[in-house]
Amino acid sequence: MASLGDIGLAAGLNVLTAVAFLLAFAFLRLQPINDRVYFPKWYLRGMRDNPIVSGAAVQKFVNLDARSYLKFLNWMPAALKMPQDELINHAGLDSVVYLRIYVTGLKIFVPITVLAFLVLVPVNWTNDTLGRINVVYSPIDKLSISNVPNGSKRFIAHLGMAYAITFWTCYVLLKEYEIISNMRLRFLASEKRRPDQFTVLVRNIPPDPDESISELVEHFFLVNHPDHYLQHQVVYNANKLADLVEKKKKMRNWLDYYLLKYERNSSLRPTTKTGFLGCFGSKVDAIDYYKSEIEKIGKQEAEERKNVMKDPKSVVPAAFVSFRSRWGAAVCAQTQQTSNPTLWLTEWAPEPRDVYWNNLSIPFVSLTIRRLIVAVAFFFLNFFYVIPITFVQSLANLEGIEKALPFLKPLIDLPFIKSFIQGFLPGIALKIFLIVLPTILMFMSKFEGLISQSSLERRSASKYYIFLFFNVFLGSVIAGSALEQLKTYLHTSANDIPRIIGDSIPMKATFFITYVMVDGWTGIAGEILRLKPLIFFHLKNFFLVKTEKDREEAMDPGSICFDSTEPRIQLYFLLGLVYAAVTPFLLPFILVFFGFAYVVFRHQIINVYNQQYESAAQFWPSVHGRIITALIVSQLLLLGLMSTNDFEQTTPVLLVLPVLTFGFYKYCKNRFEPAFVRNPLQEAMKKDTLERAREPNLDLKAYLANSYLHPVFKGDEGDDRYSVMDDDGWMEEEVIVPTKRHSRRTTPAQSKHEGSDSLSVLESSLQR
Amino acid sequence: MASLGDIGLAAGLNVLTAVAFLLAFAFLRLQPINDRVYFPKWYLRGMRDNPIVSGAAVQKFVNLDARSYLKFLNWMPAALKMPQDELINHAGLDSVVYLRIYVTGLKIFVPITVLAFLVLVPVNWTNDTLGRINVVYSPIDKLSISNVPNGSKRFIAHLGMAYAITFWTCYVLLKEYEIISNMRLRFLASEKRRPDQFTVLVRNIPPDPDESISELVEHFFLVNHPDHYLQHQVVYNANKLADLVEKKKKMRNWLDYYLLKYERNSSLRPTTKTGFLGCFGSKVDAIDYYKSEIEKIGKQEAEERKNVMKDPKSVVPAAFVSFRSRWGAAVCAQTQQTSNPTLWLTEWAPEPRDVYWNNLSIPFVSLTIRRLIVAVAFFFLNFFYVIPITFVQSLANLEGIEKALPFLKPLIDLPFIKSFIQGFLPGIALKIFLIVLPTILMFMSKFEGLISQSSLERRSASKYYIFLFFNVFLGSVIAGSALEQLKTYLHTSANDIPRIIGDSIPMKATFFITYVMVDGWTGIAGEILRLKPLIFFHLKNFFLVKTEKDREEAMDPGSICFDSTEPRIQLYFLLGLVYAAVTPFLLPFILVFFGFAYVVFRHQIINVYNQQYESAAQFWPSVHGRIITALIVSQLLLLGLMSTNDFEQTTPVLLVLPVLTFGFYKYCKNRFEPAFVRNPLQEAMKKDTLERAREPNLDLKAYLANSYLHPVFKGDEGDDRYSVMDDDGWMEEEVIVPTKRHSRRTTPAQSKHEGSDSLSVLESSLQR
Repeated sequence: MASLGDIGLAAGLNVLTAVAFLLAFAFLRLQPINDRVYFPKWYLRGMRDNPIVSGAAVQKFVNLDARSYLKFLNWMPAALKMPQDELINHAGLDSVVYLRIYVTGLKIFVPITVLAFLVLVPVNWTNDTLGRINVVYSPIDKLSISNVPNGSKRFIAHLGMAYAITFWTCYVLLKEYEIISNMRLRFLASEKRRPDQFTVLVRNIPPDPDESISELVEHFFLVNHPDHYLQHQVVYNANKLADLVEKKKKMRNWLDYYLLKYERNSSLRPTTKTGFLGCFGSKVDAIDYYKSEIEKIGKQEAEERKNVMKDPKSVVPAAFVSFRSRWGAAVCAQTQQTSNPTLWLTEWAPEPRDVYWNNLSIPFVSLTIRRLIVAVAFFFLNFFYVIPITFVQSLANLEGIEKALPFLKPLIDLPFIKSFIQGFLPGIALKIFLIVLPTILMFMSKFEGLISQSSLERRSASKYYIFLFFNVFLGSVIAGSALEQLKTYLHTSANDIPRIIGDSIPMKATFFITYVMVDGWTGIAGEILRLKPLIFFHLKNFFLVKTEKDREEAMDPGSICFDSTEPRIQLYFLLGLVYAAVTPFLLPFILVFFGFAYVVFRHQIINVYNQQYESAAQFWPSVHGRIITALIVSQLLLLGLMSTNDFEQTTPVLLVLPVLTFGFYKYCKNRFEPAFVRNPLQEAMKKDTLERAREPNLDLKAYLANSYLHPVFKGDEGDDRYSVMDDDGWMEEEVIVPTKRHSRRTTPAQSKHEGSDSLSVLESSLQR
Repeated sequence: MASLGDIGLAAGLNVLTAVAFLLAFAFLRLQPINDRVYFPKWYLRGMRDNPIVSGAAVQKFVNLDARSYLKFLNWMPAALKMPQDELINHAGLDSVVYLRIYVTGLKIFVPITVLAFLVLVPVNWTNDTLGRINVVYSPIDKLSISNVPNGSKRFIAHLGMAYAITFWTCYVLLKEYEIISNMRLRFLASEKRRPDQFTVLVRNIPPDPDESISELVEHFFLVNHPDHYLQHQVVYNANKLADLVEKKKKMRNWLDYYLLKYERNSSLRPTTKTGFLGCFGSKVDAIDYYKSEIEKIGKQEAEERKNVMKDPKSVVPAAFVSFRSRWGAAVCAQTQQTSNPTLWLTEWAPEPRDVYWNNLSIPFVSLTIRRLIVAVAFFFLNFFYVIPITFVQSLANLEGIEKALPFLKPLIDLPFIKSFIQGFLPGIALKIFLIVLPTILMFMSKFEGLISQSSLERRSASKYYIFLFFNVFLGSVIAGSALEQLKTYLHTSANDIPRIIGDSIPMKATFFITYVMVDGWTGIAGEILRLKPLIFFHLKNFFLVKTEKDREEAMDPGSICFDSTEPRIQLYFLLGLVYAAVTPFLLPFILVFFGFAYVVFRHQIINVYNQQYESAAQFWPSVHGRIITALIVSQLLLLGLMSTNDFEQTTPVLLVLPVLTFGFYKYCKNRFEPAFVRNPLQEAMKKDTLERAREPNLDLKAYLANSYLHPVFKGDEGDDRYSVMDDDGWMEEEVIVPTKRHSRRTTPAQSKHEGSDSLSVLESSLQR
């Protein structure tokens, strides 16, 4: 067990690293040349222009103003200054509510920490169990529940603490749910007109031999929503077309690259090879080759476009149906249309930029099967992921490599290479797995058939949380892979599982303290430094940027990445709640994490991240649910711990807590969750009435036209731009604050599909 | 273990009893005097008149036609003859679908039985494990899986059988679900106009200081459903008034009783005592006393009526809101009205006769708490019910009684009384508990706040099933009370629970065979005899019946009692599925039950039962769900059994089954359940359009007026009848076939509140 000195050393190291990161950040962000790395959000909003426009040449790149360095920490108060309403305007409700997760953490844990230090620390400290049984122990253990003798009456203090924690946590959660659902409702009420307010997504339209899908939809809604139906937009299966567009874009990027190369060194005409990755095949003039290729694909694309628009088979049995009023759309989205509940499925249309187009055509039966497959696959991923990794590790040893690739033998036999492979390879398989895990989970969610980016992220987040719970939390506590755990769970009685886990909880406190410092402190400090985007921006800037437009595309603002960051925060809630009554010494470390992360992410949200969609805090119910889960887990583990400490008579007293907590969860689910799922008619009616009074002559049909067209039809930046629509429609509505025109092309709706793609070639060639 | 001879003896005894019951029934039903006991449904429908009207005096009471006795079993083909559509017309969809549960049982188990006897019986029989290990065994065990040696390859046959059972059961369930949801949809589509099609129940109307609830409702719906709102009916808290009406009715019954007594013996003016139960207090003239009492209560009642109608406090925050079209009602019922999902809760109004009025005013928060309380209470009832019963049993011994009531000592010391108490009392507490159990469960469901009779019955049925599953099925298999089981579950690993239970499954086969014969064969035969209603009818007929109307009220048709009968059928599904692959010898017994019960209940539904409500088969999803549960349980137990037979390598193969079955359940839930919960807009629109074409001048407002008034306001049969409404409104619509006017008073809507009440006094005095 780690002594207090070890912890102190680790803390010192982590604080030092974190401070180093912060200093580096404070220095780098002041350099004008990095401005687009650390303040991309402002560029995207059009509120900031290049700092390069005026001044001396050096000042373009380096900040020479000495005074600004003195105030190197002033980003912190600056980040905290922006008032909430302005922040919602600036970054959207999702980001603001995401920050509230940290605030909730602080609200829950600050009073609990104070109470634990006032009550539990004296109770634990004034015993001498550890001293008497002559084990090596550290002062941290003296502060923990392990120091209380078995069967002591003092456990009543821990019991009381468990009650206090439960009630306080539930109280905070209740208040937060209230606040956030009010924020959501206010946000939705104050929103400008948006196409998704009037639109419903209809899926599983049954085939009809006599009518096309478009006619079918029109007739169906004219009959069944006669007073409300306005128009509809069929969904094209444009995956092939999207591929072509993508391919053309890549070709154009290469062309740009070679043109730039030629420009810089006009004596040498650049060449390329036509084969795989430009490495094989015959040598040709690069510029000519790509020009002809682009032309060829352009023709194919035009052909395909025509096909898609003409061929009735390319229309998938789904459509976006728009209504005359928000009331009509709200009604259609919430009701069942036909007696067969698997046909004519209606739901609120996601924002146009949030739609995940590939999944719109999945039929209903296949959805259930897909869900079952993913559930089984995730079960195996969660519990058996160690098996393939062990297998890969066993392959990736020296003998395996020498056998498979005998010509590498002389190389491998070099001592340096040998030790590198032996030390590095076994770990790398696991490391790679953990890095790609969020991607795997996202792929699973996509396979399940969800139809919006936001719901995909929410679903992936749940999966990731389950993975972290079993493999990181329980895996560390009872020190086994999830597979071994599974065996334990199956072979141990329901009674003993909390006992086994609860028993080893106090011993793992120091490990988790170190974990919190490394992952929570240093990790967060690393987040603000943005090392990877910094490097890539400068590489792109150096190699590829010709115009202001290119520079804008070289920015990589990133986003919150709810699917991987939120489950990590949840781990801290879990640790905090589990250890609050056991080893309160862990709590201050978690408090530091919540406070520090809040400031850092607030800064990032204001200055950096650019959200891809706005779901108006739809993720809160799952955040709430996971904190409740953590609370129940902590109660069960305390129960197990108590029963190993000869204090079993408390079991009924403690068993009340999970029951009550579950009741509280059900109550909150009934009371608040509908506000995050359904759209109340009253609100819709209010907005309709207001709008009718304000803009009696609004042409809704024109307003909604083409807003739900597949993005490939929405024109792109090529010279042979093919535009089915005027793409100014809702896009302008979308941007809340007046923007400069030239930055519009990178507003969220398009950045996903066109964003930094023209530069991705370089990026990929660099990585190779 | 019981030998084949024991089983044969038991079978013989049960068959004899059943045949005796059937003979008694065949004889009794032919007597005209019993006509109203065995054919009440036809009287209620007005299709049958008293057989007493003509003929010789003797023939009024006894059937002298010898030929009719020869065909004493002809009720069976008669019961099977009625075609389905006519049966739906005659008895309602609920009853017809209830019969389909038995049909489903036959469909599932006939092929399984054939297959099991073709495949498993030879496989089991041709071993000699039981012979070799020298235990006493019966031929039944030779047919069961116990006869296959451990680790034998022959278990592959049982595995294959498990797969066959799963797929066949799922296939039948899928087809049945399809058929029944189609039946439901056809039924709903073909229904005549009914008030509940246009009406939505609104609950949790928030209080408003400026407006009464009635105004509030009107304004809210005029604003939010401007084109569809028609009118509304507030709900009065008329519980006190209902008590008074009830009391007056009882008094009038007593009056009738004494008047009749006086009529028969006019020499003696009857007297009564004014105190408790008519046993204490001063002696008065009974007729005068009850007349004055009735007058007094009548005045109170009129007063209370006025109060209720005037006092705004007697209006509960709930209302029945009616719409101009079914479409409007369907929309309102399925949508969320305001941003606070706990206010203005809307749902389809149950049929007027199905409404459970007492629960309409329960506020939302209290609902969650009530549900939690009932969940905990049911948990204790299920697992700890033996504790109070043991306690009562320990009190109810001889010493206890002698101590508590010393004056009984001489009586108790009589040898006969003594042995009676000793032999009888310990069992009686348990027996009483089991008899009142459905009532307790129904009380729990009522406490939960459900608002319709049908949903109350469904909820009670789930609870009863859980109770039967743990206390009858598992209780018999592992031979312990649920409390002991609970200890086992908590202290045994998840792996071992199916093993322990599975291991003892084959040994219990003979017990369950006896159970099936006693409960399933003889019990069902007893059902058709209707001994209790027969006795009560004749007693009432003799003591109380003056007029034709009285005789009609003396009938007690009863109903299916879904809450207690359906869980019992489910027990047979469970037994059949569990034993199909283990001891196929049990299957024929279950087949006999399903076939016999089908005929009996079909007869009862045609001739006897009178359903209190029509839910259009809303219970099917839970029936389906419980059969699936039984299937999964059977798979898990087979898995446990296999692993004790040294055939553990099959675990993964068997584990696939529950996963697939669960996937199938989810699919069915998504595919079919909405058809039982929500009302599709297309159907509503169709009916609206048709109706508008057929009856363009329909006055819907007049049609709906007062249809959802509390039943106490709907007038009753007294001379001082107080009628707020014309009660002919929907009632006439309700009855599908033209009825004779005089039978109308006992149509379902009123029978519940007024039914045989005028005779209940006698019944209760007889029971005392």
